Amino acid sequence: MVNDLSSYIRAVPGFPKPGIVFRDITTLLNNPAAFQSALEALHAPFKQNRIDKVVGIESRGFIFGALLANLLHAGFVPARKPGKLPATVLREDYELEYGHDAIEIHTGAIRAGEQILVHDDLLATGGTAAATCRLIERMHGTIVGVSFLIELSFLNGRDRLRPYAVHSVIRYDAENE
Amino acid sequence: MVNDLSSYIRAVPGFPKPGIVFRDITTLLNNPAAFQSALEALHAPFKQNRIDKVVGIESRGFIFGALLANLLHAGFVPARKPGKLPATVLREDYELEYGHDAIEIHTGAIRAGEQILVHDDLLATGGTAAATCRLIERMHGTIVGVSFLIELSFLNGRDRLRPYAVHSVIRYDAENE
Repeated sequence: MVNDLSSYIRAVPGFPKPGIVFRDITTLLNNPAAFQSALEALHAPFKQNRIDKVVGIESRGFIFGALLANLLHAGFVPARKPGKLPATVLREDYELEYGHDAIEIHTGAIRAGEQILVHDDLLATGGTAAATCRLIERMHGTIVGVSFLIELSFLNGRDRLRPYAVHSVIRYDAENE
Repeated sequence: MVNDLSSYIRAVPGFPKPGIVFRDITTLLNNPAAFQSALEALHAPFKQNRIDKVVGIESRGFIFGALLANLLHAGFVPARKPGKLPATVLREDYELEYGHDAIEIHTGAIRAGEQILVHDDLLATGGTAAATCRLIERMHGTIVGVSFLIELSFLNGRDRLRPYAVHSVIRYDAENE
């Protein structure tokens, strides 16, 4: 069991643009003990829940999303950027600071009444996760929780995900923490 | 245990372009029993090997790649398209039918002498996987095997991956099979 998971996250200043400190999870994934501890910490809050599907958000959300689905005996559903999923999709648009983007899920990937856990590696402003949740609710899925390895709490993404149960493992209270 | 895993793969004719039949794994991932059986079939050939790192190729290769790393008590290393990894990378270019592409791995993600399993969801012409293997060898890693959920054997990608141990779970002998 690794206690200080945040020590395995690499800070990369200036990526993808000046002023941003990128929180790189690849250094955590590289270490088997830290990787396993992070998985356990992500799994723990939802262990007692019935989860039918885990929705992982492209593309780093696929990593722990697939692992959570397997541990919870659930199916895995990828939520992807437009044009990536091959069959018929449902699409949800959302606003960015400059411009807009969209997220898609295959039609039929979620059935009415299914219990859904949403996962992404990082919660920033929460726009993508909120759009993914709206998509799931349009498919009549019930969102049990929204899970992140990292939360940039100074961006207040959690407010955008009210009233869902939001869980994060590692939190940063400032860009340069 | 699901026996006929191929029945969970959806054929999508005309994606991403006319004449191509896309093999969609999301229908397999959606079913917990098929998902688990596919994972077991991918894991089985490498169970007895010491694997230090599993390299998963962007982005569908992250799904089973992360699961294999966890089962094998290995670290997980993402191999990504240019510009996606935040820190210093090693890069390998390769030819496509029309044009060229490249794949990157973080410097330091693989250490000399480490035993490496490479995973992607699908083996087509093998260009990306072969470039990933070259990258790993430039980092002095030893490739134990190259693993795919699906092999399009009519594209002869396996020839490009000689002399590695190539393993696939589901094979298609023709585009329209």
